[in-house]
Amino acid sequence: MSSSHRAELSAALSTLRAERPLIHNITNFVVMNFTANVLLAAGASPAMVHAAEEAGAFAAISRALVINIGTLDAGFVAGMELAVASATARQVPWVLDPVGVGATGYRTEVALRLSRMKPAVIRGNAGEIMALAGAAGSGRGVDSLSGSEEAIEAGRTLSHLTGAVVAVTGATDFVIADDVIPVTGGHAISQQVTGTGCATTALVGAFLAVAAPKDAAIAGLALMKRAAELAEPGSPGPGSFATKLIDAIAAVR
Amino acid sequence: MSSSHRAELSAALSTLRAERPLIHNITNFVVMNFTANVLLAAGASPAMVHAAEEAGAFAAISRALVINIGTLDAGFVAGMELAVASATARQVPWVLDPVGVGATGYRTEVALRLSRMKPAVIRGNAGEIMALAGAAGSGRGVDSLSGSEEAIEAGRTLSHLTGAVVAVTGATDFVIADDVIPVTGGHAISQQVTGTGCATTALVGAFLAVAAPKDAAIAGLALMKRAAELAEPGSPGPGSFATKLIDAIAAVR
Amino acid sequence: MSSSHRAELSAALSTLRAERPLIHNITNFVVMNFTANVLLAAGASPAMVHAAEEAGAFAAISRALVINIGTLDAGFVAGMELAVASATARQVPWVLDPVGVGATGYRTEVALRLSRMKPAVIRGNAGEIMALAGAAGSGRGVDSLSGSEEAIEAGRTLSHLTGAVVAVTGATDFVIADDVIPVTGGHAISQQVTGTGCATTALVGAFLAVAAPKDAAIAGLALMKRAAELAEPGSPGPGSFATKLIDAIAAVR
Repeated sequence: MSSSHRAELSAALSTLRAERPLIHNITNFVVMNFTANVLLAAGASPAMVHAAEEAGAFAAISRALVINIGTLDAGFVAGMELAVASATARQVPWVLDPVGVGATGYRTEVALRLSRMKPAVIRGNAGEIMALAGAAGSGRGVDSLSGSEEAIEAGRTLSHLTGAVVAVTGATDFVIADDVIPVTGGHAISQQVTGTGCATTALVGAFLAVAAPKDAAIAGLALMKRAAELAEPGSPGPGSFATKLIDAIAAVR
Repeated sequence: MSSSHRAELSAALSTLRAERPLIHNITNFVVMNFTANVLLAAGASPAMVHAAEEAGAFAAISRALVINIGTLDAGFVAGMELAVASATARQVPWVLDPVGVGATGYRTEVALRLSRMKPAVIRGNAGEIMALAGAAGSGRGVDSLSGSEEAIEAGRTLSHLTGAVVAVTGATDFVIADDVIPVTGGHAISQQVTGTGCATTALVGAFLAVAAPKDAAIAGLALMKRAAELAEPGSPGPGSFATKLIDAIAAVR
Repeated sequence: MSSSHRAELSAALSTLRAERPLIHNITNFVVMNFTANVLLAAGASPAMVHAAEEAGAFAAISRALVINIGTLDAGFVAGMELAVASATARQVPWVLDPVGVGATGYRTEVALRLSRMKPAVIRGNAGEIMALAGAAGSGRGVDSLSGSEEAIEAGRTLSHLTGAVVAVTGATDFVIADDVIPVTGGHAISQQVTGTGCATTALVGAFLAVAAPKDAAIAGLALMKRAAELAEPGSPGPGSFATKLIDAIAAVR
């Protein structure tokens, strides 16, 4: 199925590239480089800043904030909470990626606490969204064993509980708020590249700087789906695909 | 010399890809992304989890554990020791990569302490294996100045002292336990890409989830050697080679 | 404009590749992998070591030290200060990259403190050099909104205050000490790849092991400019360009 929401994406990308907003990321070690390159390719201005000494001050000068708990520890969580508090006080929108929630008690506790701090969007795979909603998560870590369709009900619950737009990604993505909007397209090889989900969250964060939460979620998901379609043909494997995915994000108009 | 152990590798890869085991990594910042992509290409399901609050719990739900001290600090070492203790209690096998042991007293002390906690496999270059065995290490950091052959005796000593299978990598690799098994093939350009050694350790970790330690070490080393052979032709330099190496790992059957 | 300083670069590269000096990096999480691969491609032997327990000891066995505050926190800053003190005591030269100075008070305070510890070279974009010199910085984070020419006066001031050679990078780079030397060439696509500035700093660090500060700065800047020119043709986007940039650094003679 070819990618959906092309017209909306095109409009959102034009605004993003014209404004080049500063996007504050507190994300995991595995994907920091890939995320920064994805955001640059999309047209945003990324920065990674996590220290408690400055995370609040930096969120205050940013246009949106991305919080990803992939390699969380006490120091990073302290920075996340200060950044979120500062962002909230200044109406800077933020997106939460609850990587691996359900895998350990610590991870679940931190993800739940953050989810109650009014994120504009929560983006996860089916297992994560189900775990965070209190439904039966797989507890398997960062890879989901469930199809995204199975998490729609959990997504509705989570959206209701938190007030956030919920984005479940998978073979088809769903943006869940008062309604459920499918985002189609993409390619399965994305699952063989670490950080494509995390980078999708970061793209949603970039669009939060220039669009309302539901529109930002659709644009972020649609951009990653579209770029994967463009990058896959001629990629002999996941290494080449990851490189071409960045090229493709920069090439989408 | 073309790569050895193709039949064993093929069998081990089939099992790995069928079972897709969760592999818990506490590794260094430099190679986290590359390692995750190498493990995904091989067919494993990688996760990077280091916090003391959850490292033990995460090791308990994993099929194997990879410990790499490249960018160690007190927080990471605490997580490593909790993960190892938890893995040991549940008979989850683990592999130790003593990056740069011998370069500083702190690094040597941590590597020695971990080596006494019953790793199934220890993987290092010649300088690291010699330093860890108490033989004359080069003290030069992460690049070895010695040929792998020179470390065979140290490898025997280290295997005897720790009970681990010892894997020394270099132009020819050696898997050392009761006997010494050479693993041939590969390409020298691998030395120009950061993290190929660390990623080899992670591959050994992945195979530990589906094979006995000696077989896992052989399969991990043989896969990296074979992939390097496939990736090198047509690579104009180390950047392209690193990308194609991931493609090649995914392509090996 | 094609790249300048080819003859000096060629001589410095020959020495670097013959000596393969160990370069100690305390740099940010985003660029650690890219930086290590850039240094390997250039012919240096990179290591990333940040823990307070060993940063001083490691600096003492290194030929040069690279300090980059991109993702600073208290733990990393402690390691940086110990490494710098150890390097200074042993006349190991070091380069400072004050990433994002001016964006937060914490970042400015740390950058200023480090700048007073006698770096041989300070490398930044125009906004960073102006902020560090006390001139009107943009306060925008890691991307500069000012042209490099605008920072020449601030660079002179900073060089005078600190005793360091100051390298301002941009469309044209400038090496500022008693005189102002332009380094030309390169390609604007470099700005779409995260860490090209940080990697340039690391190249300056590598050349500090084999050349005087002003010559090292010129060689590091000229190498990145030259490699970008070689890598850009045929790169369909920033992902491919980043990969080919590493190939190109290895290919420059």
